[in-house]
Amino acid sequence: MAGNSIGKILTLTTFGESHGEAIGGVIDGLPADIEIDFEKIQKELDRRKPGQSKIVTQRKEADKVQFLSGFYEGKTTGTSVGFVLYNEDQKTKDYDHLKTAFRPSHADFTYQSKYGNRDFRGGGRSSARETACRVVAGAIAKQILAKLGIDIFAYVDQVGDIKLPEKSEINRSFIEKNPVRCPNEEYTEKMESLIQVTKKQGDTIGGCISSVISGVPVGFGEPVFDKLHADLGKAMLSINAVKGFEYGSGFKGASMKGSEHNDLFNKDFSTKTNFSGGIQGGISNGEDIYFRVAFKPVATIIQEQDSYDTEGNKIVLKGKGRHDPCVVPRAVVIVESMAALVLLDHYLRNKTTHL
Amino acid sequence: MAGNSIGKILTLTTFGESHGEAIGGVIDGLPADIEIDFEKIQKELDRRKPGQSKIVTQRKEADKVQFLSGFYEGKTTGTSVGFVLYNEDQKTKDYDHLKTAFRPSHADFTYQSKYGNRDFRGGGRSSARETACRVVAGAIAKQILAKLGIDIFAYVDQVGDIKLPEKSEINRSFIEKNPVRCPNEEYTEKMESLIQVTKKQGDTIGGCISSVISGVPVGFGEPVFDKLHADLGKAMLSINAVKGFEYGSGFKGASMKGSEHNDLFNKDFSTKTNFSGGIQGGISNGEDIYFRVAFKPVATIIQEQDSYDTEGNKIVLKGKGRHDPCVVPRAVVIVESMAALVLLDHYLRNKTTHL
Amino acid sequence: MAGNSIGKILTLTTFGESHGEAIGGVIDGLPADIEIDFEKIQKELDRRKPGQSKIVTQRKEADKVQFLSGFYEGKTTGTSVGFVLYNEDQKTKDYDHLKTAFRPSHADFTYQSKYGNRDFRGGGRSSARETACRVVAGAIAKQILAKLGIDIFAYVDQVGDIKLPEKSEINRSFIEKNPVRCPNEEYTEKMESLIQVTKKQGDTIGGCISSVISGVPVGFGEPVFDKLHADLGKAMLSINAVKGFEYGSGFKGASMKGSEHNDLFNKDFSTKTNFSGGIQGGISNGEDIYFRVAFKPVATIIQEQDSYDTEGNKIVLKGKGRHDPCVVPRAVVIVESMAALVLLDHYLRNKTTHL
Amino acid sequence: MAGNSIGKILTLTTFGESHGEAIGGVIDGLPADIEIDFEKIQKELDRRKPGQSKIVTQRKEADKVQFLSGFYEGKTTGTSVGFVLYNEDQKTKDYDHLKTAFRPSHADFTYQSKYGNRDFRGGGRSSARETACRVVAGAIAKQILAKLGIDIFAYVDQVGDIKLPEKSEINRSFIEKNPVRCPNEEYTEKMESLIQVTKKQGDTIGGCISSVISGVPVGFGEPVFDKLHADLGKAMLSINAVKGFEYGSGFKGASMKGSEHNDLFNKDFSTKTNFSGGIQGGISNGEDIYFRVAFKPVATIIQEQDSYDTEGNKIVLKGKGRHDPCVVPRAVVIVESMAALVLLDHYLRNKTTHL
Repeated sequence: MAGNSIGKILTLTTFGESHGEAIGGVIDGLPADIEIDFEKIQKELDRRKPGQSKIVTQRKEADKVQFLSGFYEGKTTGTSVGFVLYNEDQKTKDYDHLKTAFRPSHADFTYQSKYGNRDFRGGGRSSARETACRVVAGAIAKQILAKLGIDIFAYVDQVGDIKLPEKSEINRSFIEKNPVRCPNEEYTEKMESLIQVTKKQGDTIGGCISSVISGVPVGFGEPVFDKLHADLGKAMLSINAVKGFEYGSGFKGASMKGSEHNDLFNKDFSTKTNFSGGIQGGISNGEDIYFRVAFKPVATIIQEQDSYDTEGNKIVLKGKGRHDPCVVPRAVVIVESMAALVLLDHYLRNKTTHL
Repeated sequence: MAGNSIGKILTLTTFGESHGEAIGGVIDGLPADIEIDFEKIQKELDRRKPGQSKIVTQRKEADKVQFLSGFYEGKTTGTSVGFVLYNEDQKTKDYDHLKTAFRPSHADFTYQSKYGNRDFRGGGRSSARETACRVVAGAIAKQILAKLGIDIFAYVDQVGDIKLPEKSEINRSFIEKNPVRCPNEEYTEKMESLIQVTKKQGDTIGGCISSVISGVPVGFGEPVFDKLHADLGKAMLSINAVKGFEYGSGFKGASMKGSEHNDLFNKDFSTKTNFSGGIQGGISNGEDIYFRVAFKPVATIIQEQDSYDTEGNKIVLKGKGRHDPCVVPRAVVIVESMAALVLLDHYLRNKTTHL
Repeated sequence: MAGNSIGKILTLTTFGESHGEAIGGVIDGLPADIEIDFEKIQKELDRRKPGQSKIVTQRKEADKVQFLSGFYEGKTTGTSVGFVLYNEDQKTKDYDHLKTAFRPSHADFTYQSKYGNRDFRGGGRSSARETACRVVAGAIAKQILAKLGIDIFAYVDQVGDIKLPEKSEINRSFIEKNPVRCPNEEYTEKMESLIQVTKKQGDTIGGCISSVISGVPVGFGEPVFDKLHADLGKAMLSINAVKGFEYGSGFKGASMKGSEHNDLFNKDFSTKTNFSGGIQGGISNGEDIYFRVAFKPVATIIQEQDSYDTEGNKIVLKGKGRHDPCVVPRAVVIVESMAALVLLDHYLRNKTTHL
Repeated sequence: MAGNSIGKILTLTTFGESHGEAIGGVIDGLPADIEIDFEKIQKELDRRKPGQSKIVTQRKEADKVQFLSGFYEGKTTGTSVGFVLYNEDQKTKDYDHLKTAFRPSHADFTYQSKYGNRDFRGGGRSSARETACRVVAGAIAKQILAKLGIDIFAYVDQVGDIKLPEKSEINRSFIEKNPVRCPNEEYTEKMESLIQVTKKQGDTIGGCISSVISGVPVGFGEPVFDKLHADLGKAMLSINAVKGFEYGSGFKGASMKGSEHNDLFNKDFSTKTNFSGGIQGGISNGEDIYFRVAFKPVATIIQEQDSYDTEGNKIVLKGKGRHDPCVVPRAVVIVESMAALVLLDHYLRNKTTHL
């Protein structure tokens, strides 16, 4: 059943296999008559693209987006936006050995079993390449939210066991200046060297991304099932490799007492603390929204692993050399993009609360 | 905008305020011609209902469900199922002092700001009373899943700082025999006494619930946005007081290496480990699905708290005596119910994968 | 699969069998903080209810609606509205002879074949009794639209072969003063006597309803699939017994030339003619929206008809005495109600066109 | 708000302006592992394309579709299908005179008023060029339905006042052999010469298309709002220039008596007559489904017409020479395509009726 769309008023529908002709999508429900800076969209794509630093995959993908509709003279027209990114680096033969292989902890086995037919090349539809489409749509949403005073940023706060301590300094301007996208110089170095070591071992490592959304007015979120954080959670969990989502106090909140956790009001209805994470009863309360997303280590490792092929024969697999040792640096912009799509959708939904 | 429905092929739409006339809902898309055991539904409701033990709220609510449609001679007819639970314990006056109060970390302020009008009594629509409707629908879904060999259970694995260690014995039959719904006798006692102490302090405490789903065939889940775990995550995050969701290795997966985390296959395509949590590429792989949900402490405490009223006047609030000191024991069945709804919806979605 | 909901921002979900416990529904997405006149809702229900005149069914159904949620102190709260109409006239035994019968041109055979199980009493879910729920929701939508200056009315313009000529006088105030709900005194008499004659013959007769919506601003309707008239058409075609829908020039438009059909503009962008029916390119243009709906004759006739039972045995059926000889007089308010739901949904959708 | 998608399990989302870069779409929810004949898709597109005969527009558009995803080795993979048709005939300058003009009975005025920004070239998004995307998706759906034994065809039965009499011979094989796509030789000539005369006058003329769907098993359609004919009706009404839809007895049914209209059963539960049009209670009953669609005359005429520009200045407009004098011959395949999409969606929906 159709499952390649997200959003209610603003929707993104994507298509495309890692090594097919192209990936792309349709953005529907964008507000009309808004000027868009197309260079900014490409810059966002560049934050996700392979080969941007030594600690990410060295695949060569230009990731140039072409818009096919929905704009006129640089402005949204309110009609659906079609876009494509043609696949350039289609070294299909690189993948021939995987035609009948089931790689451990990939989607090979589940796709083959569910569909009975799959494009195995580079993971086909299950490849994280698909997330480039999310970045295209998210980059547009982010620009529009900025006009509303809503600001979203994300950063890496954990790589393997190296975790930014809770009250560390968050230097936002530093995030894009280092290949890890960590906002703290000291921890950046540690994380980077862990990724380097892991890479040399032919291994991969997991990590976490935190995101902060500020400037959200009171009122985004629709009880009871479409709570703002429930939609954010689904959006994050739909990103490849994500294993967990928490917002506000998150899992730590489970250890807390009500008397500690309650966010007391100031006279202007801001709150003295923000364990709620900017959302109460599923609706934004005007405080910063913040959440955290856990990513598992990339499944492709440059080490020999036992596995089985589609016929049940034992095989030995070893990844080839152009994979990410750690996915989080490139995933920062994906997290921001999905957050932007959810926020803009809920901004529009909230416009219908009153006559 | 409409936000009171969940599910695509099987949908649940709910309505009702805590102290209004009734709560209830419509279950649409149930498969036809299936015999339902109505007593089992009531038993599930009893697992959620107030007053069931000393460590939960002592409110008196019978929580009797009345079905108004959708069954004939004990079987589903494939038409929509309407149901209601009339509110009996409507001591409206108990809530008069809250008419203009904004309680900290409740949804009072956000609902009032968003809607400009609200039923403040007992939290109105934002009250967890709404979850009784989820249990009604979930209890039906669970029965149907059982016919398919799919089994769901959940249990409390953390209350405050007391956390079931990772490899503890899980005695499933013990879960419903203790008021905490912990599957381990030793930890049950610790958790229960922590709840008792917290209650005496007029305070509340958070906790976590784990759930295991077994018997799920390969193939549930729809890439790319409606991944099975993304829909499970949204369903859990839509439950009142939930702050986090993780599945499989979860947040711990962020610390792991690929070489540890990869689940190697056995010859029958089962896996030697299950860090994937039974889902790969968003699609069930036949292994047990397991996930964990974090709940914050209940916001209503029996202690004085400073706050403000709707006019911005400073006030002092103190909760009255019939609230849960810890929500997780009663939430176990809610977690199971939401899991059942998601699973049955995805079972039905997966039926359309092939001609 | 779930099919008991209509609308996108404003949704109506209904449940209930003709002779089950109750019918009812959930209205979700109503704008908040709007005062509702509940007596007006009941008055709309009375326009649909059986027994209101000599030319409609003499069944006794009070059709009293009870609201269970979604209002506080007479105003919408923005939360979902649950409502029920209990079934009073459950002379179940009247229907025992139909348990295994397949009545011609009813839904008996299709429901039984599709679902394998059905509530046969009075047609169960396929009964037009379900439309009372549409009137409840539509009556609320109509009140809200009135605050926006949008006015909807409908009338009978055809009963059998008697058809109101194209340029007849439409006396709106006369519509509710006659049992046919025809706006023209001369034709009312002819129609009424045709219905009377038909009734005496134990037969039934079809008819048509026209509707006019005025005060709609430019801009309602969402290209390309959710064109305003496409959503109106679907809403009308979902009403029991409807066989056709046309708007503006309708089927007559097929005979026309472009030079006749084109609606030339006035200087204020109103149009000199209105063959477009108030909608161009799927979007309202500010002119009156008008459309026409065809109803087939009621299938239950008080004459002997050959048929078969569920086992394939030949049977003879004869309807019993409390059926409508002609459905259009009671259907006028249903047409208005569905139109109101579509219009309010599109008003809300259009609110999201711009930032 | 997003409105460029149709369908629930099988969805089509389209994008593209008449004179933008390209038009295209995403088909999501196709059943997996089905072999597709791509030449047949192109043949269907050729039935819609301009320049195919003397009585249609002489624009040159190759209408070549490129598939970008969703197939592997000629079979569906169950993933979303992206496709594009690049616009070749972009004589943008031809449209410069329309930049500020509001053409009568086009969507110029409504789009400009709703969105405040539009691609005016060739009608932009409101152009019927968009329907090529429907044909792509419909051609795939039709192939899949054929494997299920479901057959769809449509034909022109009316052009202007020339209407195929009710019991005329329908020679299916003749339909594609004449430029009108009328199934009756005698009437074809009359219709063709009416179109020729109309064209010479620089005028346009409306018409009607009938469609027949056979081989549909009992059970397609979801009460109460997603009745099969309601979804067919919406799909047809969403096609450019459509003003009316009727199925089975249609508007004629309004003149009939129940005793005539009721379709009596044969012993095998087929029916002796088929005024129901193959659908009872919103569910297919196994008989042929048939319906009829009315199209207004094309608004662009090669005659001078008074109008106004965006500033309210009076202008005189005259269409240029490459427009359809009558839209129905090219619309036959669009009607079939939309019917195929609805039918396949409902086939898939019906698969979830039982466990």
